[in-house]
Amino acid sequence: MTRVLKAGILGATGTVGQRFILLLAEHPGFSIHALGASPRSAGKTYAKATKWKMSQSIPAPVRDMIVHTCEPTGEFLDCDVVFSGLDADVASEIEMAFLKADLALFSNAKNYRTHEEVPLIVPLANSSHFDLVPYQRSKHALSKGFLITNANCSTSGLVVPLKALQDRFGPLSKIVVTTMQAVSGAGYPGVSSLDIMDNVVPFIGGEESKMEWETLKILGEVNPELNGFTLLKNTKVSATCNRVPVIDGHTECVSIEFEQRPAPSVEEVIACLEAYRSEAQALGCHSAPEQAIIVSREEDRPQPRLDRENGKGYSVTVGRVRECNVFDIKLTLLVHNTILGAAGSGVLLAELAQKKGLIA
Amino acid sequence: MTRVLKAGILGATGTVGQRFILLLAEHPGFSIHALGASPRSAGKTYAKATKWKMSQSIPAPVRDMIVHTCEPTGEFLDCDVVFSGLDADVASEIEMAFLKADLALFSNAKNYRTHEEVPLIVPLANSSHFDLVPYQRSKHALSKGFLITNANCSTSGLVVPLKALQDRFGPLSKIVVTTMQAVSGAGYPGVSSLDIMDNVVPFIGGEESKMEWETLKILGEVNPELNGFTLLKNTKVSATCNRVPVIDGHTECVSIEFEQRPAPSVEEVIACLEAYRSEAQALGCHSAPEQAIIVSREEDRPQPRLDRENGKGYSVTVGRVRECNVFDIKLTLLVHNTILGAAGSGVLLAELAQKKGLIA
Amino acid sequence: MTRVLKAGILGATGTVGQRFILLLAEHPGFSIHALGASPRSAGKTYAKATKWKMSQSIPAPVRDMIVHTCEPTGEFLDCDVVFSGLDADVASEIEMAFLKADLALFSNAKNYRTHEEVPLIVPLANSSHFDLVPYQRSKHALSKGFLITNANCSTSGLVVPLKALQDRFGPLSKIVVTTMQAVSGAGYPGVSSLDIMDNVVPFIGGEESKMEWETLKILGEVNPELNGFTLLKNTKVSATCNRVPVIDGHTECVSIEFEQRPAPSVEEVIACLEAYRSEAQALGCHSAPEQAIIVSREEDRPQPRLDRENGKGYSVTVGRVRECNVFDIKLTLLVHNTILGAAGSGVLLAELAQKKGLIA
Amino acid sequence: MTRVLKAGILGATGTVGQRFILLLAEHPGFSIHALGASPRSAGKTYAKATKWKMSQSIPAPVRDMIVHTCEPTGEFLDCDVVFSGLDADVASEIEMAFLKADLALFSNAKNYRTHEEVPLIVPLANSSHFDLVPYQRSKHALSKGFLITNANCSTSGLVVPLKALQDRFGPLSKIVVTTMQAVSGAGYPGVSSLDIMDNVVPFIGGEESKMEWETLKILGEVNPELNGFTLLKNTKVSATCNRVPVIDGHTECVSIEFEQRPAPSVEEVIACLEAYRSEAQALGCHSAPEQAIIVSREEDRPQPRLDRENGKGYSVTVGRVRECNVFDIKLTLLVHNTILGAAGSGVLLAELAQKKGLIA
Repeated sequence: MTRVLKAGILGATGTVGQRFILLLAEHPGFSIHALGASPRSAGKTYAKATKWKMSQSIPAPVRDMIVHTCEPTGEFLDCDVVFSGLDADVASEIEMAFLKADLALFSNAKNYRTHEEVPLIVPLANSSHFDLVPYQRSKHALSKGFLITNANCSTSGLVVPLKALQDRFGPLSKIVVTTMQAVSGAGYPGVSSLDIMDNVVPFIGGEESKMEWETLKILGEVNPELNGFTLLKNTKVSATCNRVPVIDGHTECVSIEFEQRPAPSVEEVIACLEAYRSEAQALGCHSAPEQAIIVSREEDRPQPRLDRENGKGYSVTVGRVRECNVFDIKLTLLVHNTILGAAGSGVLLAELAQKKGLIA
Repeated sequence: MTRVLKAGILGATGTVGQRFILLLAEHPGFSIHALGASPRSAGKTYAKATKWKMSQSIPAPVRDMIVHTCEPTGEFLDCDVVFSGLDADVASEIEMAFLKADLALFSNAKNYRTHEEVPLIVPLANSSHFDLVPYQRSKHALSKGFLITNANCSTSGLVVPLKALQDRFGPLSKIVVTTMQAVSGAGYPGVSSLDIMDNVVPFIGGEESKMEWETLKILGEVNPELNGFTLLKNTKVSATCNRVPVIDGHTECVSIEFEQRPAPSVEEVIACLEAYRSEAQALGCHSAPEQAIIVSREEDRPQPRLDRENGKGYSVTVGRVRECNVFDIKLTLLVHNTILGAAGSGVLLAELAQKKGLIA
Repeated sequence: MTRVLKAGILGATGTVGQRFILLLAEHPGFSIHALGASPRSAGKTYAKATKWKMSQSIPAPVRDMIVHTCEPTGEFLDCDVVFSGLDADVASEIEMAFLKADLALFSNAKNYRTHEEVPLIVPLANSSHFDLVPYQRSKHALSKGFLITNANCSTSGLVVPLKALQDRFGPLSKIVVTTMQAVSGAGYPGVSSLDIMDNVVPFIGGEESKMEWETLKILGEVNPELNGFTLLKNTKVSATCNRVPVIDGHTECVSIEFEQRPAPSVEEVIACLEAYRSEAQALGCHSAPEQAIIVSREEDRPQPRLDRENGKGYSVTVGRVRECNVFDIKLTLLVHNTILGAAGSGVLLAELAQKKGLIA
Repeated sequence: MTRVLKAGILGATGTVGQRFILLLAEHPGFSIHALGASPRSAGKTYAKATKWKMSQSIPAPVRDMIVHTCEPTGEFLDCDVVFSGLDADVASEIEMAFLKADLALFSNAKNYRTHEEVPLIVPLANSSHFDLVPYQRSKHALSKGFLITNANCSTSGLVVPLKALQDRFGPLSKIVVTTMQAVSGAGYPGVSSLDIMDNVVPFIGGEESKMEWETLKILGEVNPELNGFTLLKNTKVSATCNRVPVIDGHTECVSIEFEQRPAPSVEEVIACLEAYRSEAQALGCHSAPEQAIIVSREEDRPQPRLDRENGKGYSVTVGRVRECNVFDIKLTLLVHNTILGAAGSGVLLAELAQKKGLIA
């Protein structure tokens, strides 16, 4: 039996931090051990420091925990794993300090996703990228620490079915994706009600380039020397990102062209997606969903309100798989943006790391 | 000076009919002369027969008009023009009866859009298709009647910038479009609140095939013999249609590939769209907007709530014109689905017909 | 140990019926045994007959059950309890037929709530009204059957704190309540999105008189002879009911005047509400919440999205208890309208009936 | 003919300031002459300094005007009238400086509403309170300046029908009001989408006490010596304020008890409200609506989306006038919170001041 891991949370009072707390508090494999936030919150109890916005209450054991500043000292040094929900403007420095303190760090921040020796992993897609951890440790002279980043929320949904298709049918040549993203993706207070009620905002700063670039790293490979990543070179991704009046759940409309000719049929694509099984499932990770990809055959699904909790928020739901007039296949997918698309990815990555023996 | 035309409205109590009434009541060129609806409504005053849903009140002169059944008798026979907002399940028979009664009919119903001798016209895009009217009259032995259909609401927005680009840069080879459509497009009661609050519905029955097919007819040409239409053969259109929690205004994300190499630049595309001028504008039609296409250079526009009233609902607003990783150009457009996308198209088509001498 | 009861559901395909199915399917004390719906659905599997609208999937054992018409024959005759989510326009006849067939019936329909020998019970408020069952049986010559109605959704929330206050402080003289009700209260398709997006509808047909009258019966008493009900005579209730763009959860703003002078203080009222314990809790009913009334001391609670799941939807959450300039006390309460306010009441009433020995 | 007044706007970049700009730009009686905002905005053009959020575009003449700091210097000294949309945290000092500079100031800020020598006027209700201006001038040694405040947005709607009823039927003894307020009342960014989508927030800081107190001043009288105000003493007001997912338009449910016995009937109340005519109408003020109070007899009105533009946003729409079980009369009213409830009040007050000869 695996032992219970002591978990620290950086950015614990923010939206992603709150989700980490909910997921970890009810998780048998972790105990919440240290909470970090801005100096403004430090010294207060968690309940006092936080504008709590989840529909479940603050877990009782966390209410009275004292919030600390985000420094690799005190209780954080006892942590087996540290999850970061830090804002990008402070994440670079803090996360590097934690890494240098030889801590095992799982970050939702974008800052290190593009770094050459930092894995960018969606746990249901490219857990093989953990193979770079030994190189990362050697480079930073660490014995047990490492830094893993999870992907942008919209990328996290996209790459799971793409990975299934690429594994089965070979390279994808062209991908055009248009997203309709939930407001919770922008944190709190985030999107003003005056901007989104009865409205669509056809722009999310930085989101499109993140989707386009991250997909190429995630669907790419670790070098044979296990010292870097080879990004996809022959796959073109074009993303358009919109904000819509939905609370949780990003919907993505995707058109795909395969290199393989003839392209797989609709039924072959559906069969491939339904059969897809990630390493997180194979290793029996606690949070891994029964099905990584749930394919709905109803013509009007997936819908955020009805499908975002599928697999407790860890599954990607795919529907409307059909032929495309321009490319080969079109489909619509849904990902829970704060579970598989953010904090849940971190938790599942930690489970994977433990299963893979990277956490003592 | 043009004389005031007597207008009849079929399906006058429905959502599209209500919009026709608002547009015509404040229009100097029309007087509302006859109202048709189902037998259930016939014999009642308009105010009593109608579940009025517009934010402006029922125009005073219309309140007490008596609603008739939709037959080409009585007051309808005096009408210079008849607008149809009929549901598809009754439109075929009624509209044919009105056509055979030698009336000038502008229909928002989909039933005759695909007919060989019926023009399908978006007034800011392909008013040249009126050239088929003499052939249509000869075929049906009419002296003054004809039947013109306007396009689906989402098609109506798409084809205006596509027409501008095709006119200037030659054939478009590939178009991928994803829509986020307003609930008013489904009529009343239409979309249940339980289906759309905090949600996206990734499917609208029949909408995608309509967008894909109608675009090819509208951007195609009248035969040299003026007795039929040649649809585009080398343009591929792939549409994905979604319903979002927006009251009015369809947003569409479009990726475009040109045949021409090198493809036009972003700045050339913007200049082309801004310079585009439709025949409706050139002829001085009353409802023609000052700009058929308004290009916004702000990064987060167009937005339905802020831009749908542009040009009083007759303009198409285009934003986010930028390069596409997969095709040549991406852009986002917005169309007011019940004005340019429905009733307003009918009104502007009638103005065009009058300017072109098709209405005595 | 109590035995598992066979449950029938009338109106099983509707909104309330769907909620009954979710609640019963995961309930250890019931097995779903018979499903009834309109002749249009009869003979189909439940999955085919139903436009399912819940965010959880149809429970697996129910998917393939065959739906019957609503007649007291076949599998319904084996049922220990029958729950009715029937529409008012068919409930009178069907429910009477089931009662005459000596079945134990729990109805969410309004039809028999006002009947002299039919108890109207909110399970957290007036379970003493079960005392009329023997009289009801004698009058209809039944051995094991009976008919219990639950209250209107908005009444169900209101009477719980009122009952607590009346029990402790004596008669309430005046109650003014204004509701903000969720769209799910109107069933499916129910409220059109065009009516409620960016809007409030300040009227719900029949709702205000139901709240005003039902409160007087529920807070009244069973006659000493146990053969009828004495309604409150000296309590005046004035209700104003509004529909707001909320999916689930009715919010109610209440001003209360007590007969007792001096009136209880804010802190006495809070203490009374927190200490309140219903018979359903005392008897250990499975679905009874730990707290019938949860009092929030945060100034901006209760909120439907954050508090409607309190007590799994069976608790009433009360907040903003404060002095009133005009009466004595003001408070705001929240009730989950489809759980405690509808199907959940029925389930909890059945648990109560079993505990009280009314179900063999 | 009245001359065109030069207008300054303080807080010009905020939500209320933007509404002032829209109203004044299309107003024949004013020219926008000076714009003031925070030092952060000063020196920029209006278009650059402002996050514009209105559905109409920035009026062309205003786009390139330079924004200044809020000091009574330069162009502000030429202004005939100055409108303040300042935030409360800066309004006290700035507004006093402008008053001392002998400028005619109309403020939407709450800061001076409670001051003894500052009139608090809803232009359709208590324009007689302008009578205090001479005393105010003498006290501050001014020749042409003065300071008038308009009321809180929710108060502005409430007092108009109350004033009509009080004028006709004598004192009102008890008023219980529950509001459902639009998000635009909180400014921009104001209410987070995460707080209000699928939700009601049953609390707005300070709002209830403002409604309760302001009503007593507005419905009270100027002293016979014209040197102060006598607040209502025998009228009790109890307010409960909620935020709902509506963009513009506050809905208020009101129960009223009259002193007069017997109380007026429903039909007498309706007749009184319909006959009510304010001084702003009598004097022919440009922005005064044709009807100060529009009474709807449809059972489900007023609704914010359908009725907020009544009278161009200057009318109060009243519906559901009916008997109350507890008091005498219940009704529901709607006020456009940023027009009559904020900037529009300021504009109409300036028109009134000019008509009354208080502006040279």
